[in-house]
Amino acid sequence: MSNRLTGVFAPVVTPFNADLSPNFELYLRHCQWLLQQGAGLAVFGTNSEANSLTALERMNLLDKLVQNNVDARRSLPGTGCCTIQDTVELSRHATVHGCAGVLMLPPFFYKGVSDDGLFDYYSQVIERVGLQDLRVYLYHIPAFSGVPISLALIERLIRRYPEQVVGIKDSSGDWQNIEAMLSNFPDFAIFPASESFLTRAMPLGASGCISATINVNPAAISRLCAGWQLEGAAQQQQAVDTIRKIFQSYPMIAALKFAISHYSDKPSWQVQRPPLSALTADKKTALLAALDAAGFRMPGVLEGRAP
Amino acid sequence: MSNRLTGVFAPVVTPFNADLSPNFELYLRHCQWLLQQGAGLAVFGTNSEANSLTALERMNLLDKLVQNNVDARRSLPGTGCCTIQDTVELSRHATVHGCAGVLMLPPFFYKGVSDDGLFDYYSQVIERVGLQDLRVYLYHIPAFSGVPISLALIERLIRRYPEQVVGIKDSSGDWQNIEAMLSNFPDFAIFPASESFLTRAMPLGASGCISATINVNPAAISRLCAGWQLEGAAQQQQAVDTIRKIFQSYPMIAALKFAISHYSDKPSWQVQRPPLSALTADKKTALLAALDAAGFRMPGVLEGRAP
Repeated sequence: MSNRLTGVFAPVVTPFNADLSPNFELYLRHCQWLLQQGAGLAVFGTNSEANSLTALERMNLLDKLVQNNVDARRSLPGTGCCTIQDTVELSRHATVHGCAGVLMLPPFFYKGVSDDGLFDYYSQVIERVGLQDLRVYLYHIPAFSGVPISLALIERLIRRYPEQVVGIKDSSGDWQNIEAMLSNFPDFAIFPASESFLTRAMPLGASGCISATINVNPAAISRLCAGWQLEGAAQQQQAVDTIRKIFQSYPMIAALKFAISHYSDKPSWQVQRPPLSALTADKKTALLAALDAAGFRMPGVLEGRAP
Repeated sequence: MSNRLTGVFAPVVTPFNADLSPNFELYLRHCQWLLQQGAGLAVFGTNSEANSLTALERMNLLDKLVQNNVDARRSLPGTGCCTIQDTVELSRHATVHGCAGVLMLPPFFYKGVSDDGLFDYYSQVIERVGLQDLRVYLYHIPAFSGVPISLALIERLIRRYPEQVVGIKDSSGDWQNIEAMLSNFPDFAIFPASESFLTRAMPLGASGCISATINVNPAAISRLCAGWQLEGAAQQQQAVDTIRKIFQSYPMIAALKFAISHYSDKPSWQVQRPPLSALTADKKTALLAALDAAGFRMPGVLEGRAP
């Protein structure tokens, strides 16, 4: 398991200017804040609106993060596109920058594709990237991709590329699938996509979690991940679950962006790229009321620094 | 309805070399053959493996078709990507080349998006392309995109962009949806995605069809589309349905490519980009047997010319 990631990673939400271009100043502040709160950076994930960013925009953002001394070794960029070439280009770019790994969606337009076809796709990508340092984390998110990553496919990929295919993010929300992976692939770095599984998954060998709400609640989730075996973990689990459930009652990305906008006092955080859109006024009010009632806060986010 | 496309369009299958690069020589021959058989060219559609091609590859292929005197006015390139910018770039490129229109998938990664969000997406694209000659054909293919185009969205788009949003391809396979569109939007150019609807849809005002099997059976489908009101149309409908059903019993793109490979005697037509794959040997045998039994042939395809 050497060189494999552990801990909690935020699929970093991406701020935009009014003209829909990325707002790098806000982006950098948020990345720095997340790192200071103990989270790693799963930039360009589903909750990053990465599929609304061009390949060039993703590479430019990563270039600028690195230029601004963000530690690539704590980042796990999403690089899976529909085409082999775009996926290769992004994966190579991230690997050359020294990123710890890449989080790779399967090609997600064609549905009902075979494990053989997916195996060939991942093989083409890995071989065309052609870098010994490439570390691939598969991305199982059937509700969005429509293309599940089966246990049989994982097994074939690990056997063929033991140095390259080292982990997975499981966004199925299906505990049985998480459990089966943990049991079948003990050396694999397995990240459930929700902190709500932490106290169940960590004792079975999970590596941490990659979860939307780490964008807003990184310290508590990071603490629980590191201390799942300590006294009080059950209570901490309940506390982070409470916050997660509040966000889950709203369109997730819009709710995350609104919360960050509110607690950091930066209204432009609310901009989303179509087809996604910001929360309606009544939902904003309701979300804030629920968060207030739960005693939620984002310490240090106002300054973009830990307190 | 001036300037709106009519007739039958093949979502042109894309041939690849062994290294997975596009094989332009075979591609050009196939496009020329389709035009000579009476079909238009819906290049870069679902059956073209367009979502496995980069934006640059699509633009290069279209450039080379035009350089080789393929009539852009009979082509309808697919241009819908996940990002606004890629969709704008491809749509602008096709429009500048004089293509009759563009066939535009909705952004297809994020699911459960609102009509407001899709309206904003299409608005951004149309306004950023900024060309009076742009003609958008929407693409409703919920089984692949996971993002349906509702009747309410169509109505809003037509009202806001009456000159630009002029038609739709309906791949839902749902006759009730086709009928509702034909009845609600009489001036809209509506193309069901299967020739099996021709004799039902044409009397209600459909503009033709855009169907996978036009790649292999263009003359008969084109004849039926033009002569749906003539004697013998019911029989012709049955004949084209028989061929379609044979192809539908197999993975469609693989079956189309194998048939073209066989009848044109060009084995490299069988190459597919992962995650899609060619037919297995037993399926090839079974497909050919079924086509032989049905008396199927592809006249002139051996020479890449009409006989």
